[in-house]
Amino acid sequence: MPFDMNLVQRGARLRRSPFFAATQRHGAKGYTVYNHMLFPIAFDELEAEYWHLLQHVTLWDVSVERQVEITGPDAFAFTNTLTPRELARCAVGQAKYVVVTAEDGGIVNDPVLLRLGENHFWLALADGDVLLWAKALAARAGMKVNITEPDVSPVQIQGPKAKDVVRSLFGDAVMKLRYYWFLETKLDGIPVVVTRTGWTGEVGYEIYLRDGSRGDELWERIMEAGRPHRIRPTGPSDIRRIEAGILNWGADMTLEDNVYEVGLERLVDEGKASDYIGKAALAEIRRNGTARRLAGVEIAGDPIAFNPVKWTVKSGGTPAGRITSAVWSPRLKKNIGYAMLPAPLAALHSELDVEIPGSGERRARVVEKPFVDPDKSIPRA
Amino acid sequence: MPFDMNLVQRGARLRRSPFFAATQRHGAKGYTVYNHMLFPIAFDELEAEYWHLLQHVTLWDVSVERQVEITGPDAFAFTNTLTPRELARCAVGQAKYVVVTAEDGGIVNDPVLLRLGENHFWLALADGDVLLWAKALAARAGMKVNITEPDVSPVQIQGPKAKDVVRSLFGDAVMKLRYYWFLETKLDGIPVVVTRTGWTGEVGYEIYLRDGSRGDELWERIMEAGRPHRIRPTGPSDIRRIEAGILNWGADMTLEDNVYEVGLERLVDEGKASDYIGKAALAEIRRNGTARRLAGVEIAGDPIAFNPVKWTVKSGGTPAGRITSAVWSPRLKKNIGYAMLPAPLAALHSELDVEIPGSGERRARVVEKPFVDPDKSIPRA
Repeated sequence: MPFDMNLVQRGARLRRSPFFAATQRHGAKGYTVYNHMLFPIAFDELEAEYWHLLQHVTLWDVSVERQVEITGPDAFAFTNTLTPRELARCAVGQAKYVVVTAEDGGIVNDPVLLRLGENHFWLALADGDVLLWAKALAARAGMKVNITEPDVSPVQIQGPKAKDVVRSLFGDAVMKLRYYWFLETKLDGIPVVVTRTGWTGEVGYEIYLRDGSRGDELWERIMEAGRPHRIRPTGPSDIRRIEAGILNWGADMTLEDNVYEVGLERLVDEGKASDYIGKAALAEIRRNGTARRLAGVEIAGDPIAFNPVKWTVKSGGTPAGRITSAVWSPRLKKNIGYAMLPAPLAALHSELDVEIPGSGERRARVVEKPFVDPDKSIPRA
Repeated sequence: MPFDMNLVQRGARLRRSPFFAATQRHGAKGYTVYNHMLFPIAFDELEAEYWHLLQHVTLWDVSVERQVEITGPDAFAFTNTLTPRELARCAVGQAKYVVVTAEDGGIVNDPVLLRLGENHFWLALADGDVLLWAKALAARAGMKVNITEPDVSPVQIQGPKAKDVVRSLFGDAVMKLRYYWFLETKLDGIPVVVTRTGWTGEVGYEIYLRDGSRGDELWERIMEAGRPHRIRPTGPSDIRRIEAGILNWGADMTLEDNVYEVGLERLVDEGKASDYIGKAALAEIRRNGTARRLAGVEIAGDPIAFNPVKWTVKSGGTPAGRITSAVWSPRLKKNIGYAMLPAPLAALHSELDVEIPGSGERRARVVEKPFVDPDKSIPRA
């Protein structure tokens, strides 16, 4: 084993994905923890994985995107109370990128929502116990719903050759999938859902395994189909997702932030008629504006290492905000990232200083997001 | 740095405790993740840390026990809806070990509850977003409460010399603390709460730091006071907590389990008059009995490594249950642990087989818990 798991894991508290053995066999070098589950984040250096994603195709075990499944006669009505998006506009077979909001408008989570039936939803989660959130709401809502964590474990297939891999696995039917739509199907009898989604801005698909006992089989089947296209298992590419302007819940947005602060206002349907948690608060924030904003920034100088903590941002020598994510983009040959700043400092071309522990201060300035021409990235549906 | 943090951490999603720098300086070798925060679990071998705990005194960074703070005019009434214990019997200045229950009686979490005022509570959490659970309930409860995660970070001081260390820090006032009571005080101006609690069955205290900016200072102050008593920073001792019959949420009990299954029925006040989440379900489970039980087990043979997954338990060659925790006890010279079993198999002296991946089958039998004479351990209050 290349990595001493005992340094991350003690006892059986942390869960293992159905692909865990496969990720070990294929040389995972590091795991983090996400939704109480081990998450392989490195098979190679960050930059090597990034270039492979840009040039070929990569396979990620994202089983940690645990699902909350909502069924029952009131599933639509209940799920529609969780988010500012109008779910009446989400067809069966369609997915939506949504925020789940708290009473004060804070972002509880930013899942991909899948509508599998009129009254059948999955929320594919970022790192947070939305299962508890939804169960607590349901306990007091007086609605007929069942809320569970089903046996569902996604992988991502991302990169320019993703289409070739997915076509060879599922045939032409999957090629017709529009962005953020999905298909329920089988692969060698293994039940899966195939979605045209991903966390890169590259062409990508996710395959949601619906039978945890067949993880190893599915993994090897994908690797086999990908071999002609040089598929490699990697961690998620934080470089590429930052280039694409994608945010990471827990770093770039938290329960303390709202959509207007982090630039996700497009996830609010202002005309949504029915009530949802946070509706009044969001309307008020919209009226009053926000005192801070998440801005895109470039940080001057040599390549930085991906920030492990939120670095302090200064203006005129005074602490003013925080870098939430920042990394060296090898193709832009720039350090890029996000900073949560007082609104006046978040204006384009604003000049700032970033304090990097152990490495001193760097100049930074506010720039437009995304960092990579949107023609080269796909907007989230 | 002895350990490549990049193998556990990517980006600033995971939080660091106020003692993080101190744990690095004092040689932490491994970190897990717990409540979205890095948790130092190893400074030395598991057995070396265990013996040090039994013979001297140890210091643990358990900042990951994040607090949910509940205040406001309805704080008592609201908090009393979260748990089957009658909180009217918890005085200001007193703590209680409680379960937070779901509508179906499942265990959401097993925090230590502290009552800091008539309407002021902390829940010191196991690994789960009870903040979301409580906020969602409050959003629908129509009660006047404020629910937040305050700037509070505990450490544990555990072992036979814990009293000496705490006396030298806080004087005799703290010596009068009864088990599961606490004191709000200051140490060199650092605001803290000192509780007589812990996760070992040894004599122990927890010091809850109330100002995250002073973590380093508090840590070194404790180390200094502990030097004459050979204090050492360690991870939590899973060997000692299993000997004491203490359960670990996420391994030995989960949302899928209830108190009657895991032997925590003493945390239900059957006569509790007011309503709480899960009350009806627990009454029904109590009437009907449970189909499975968490039993203490001894596993035959050579010392085992602490189980990283839930091992399969067989009866007569057929899979029947799961080992949730099991470890070698160096002083008992036995492998001890817990198994979730069908009720008939959970009877004392029941004979079983345990399948240990990569090492074959072992005989096991059901024994009494706790594994160490209760005179040598302290019952939870």
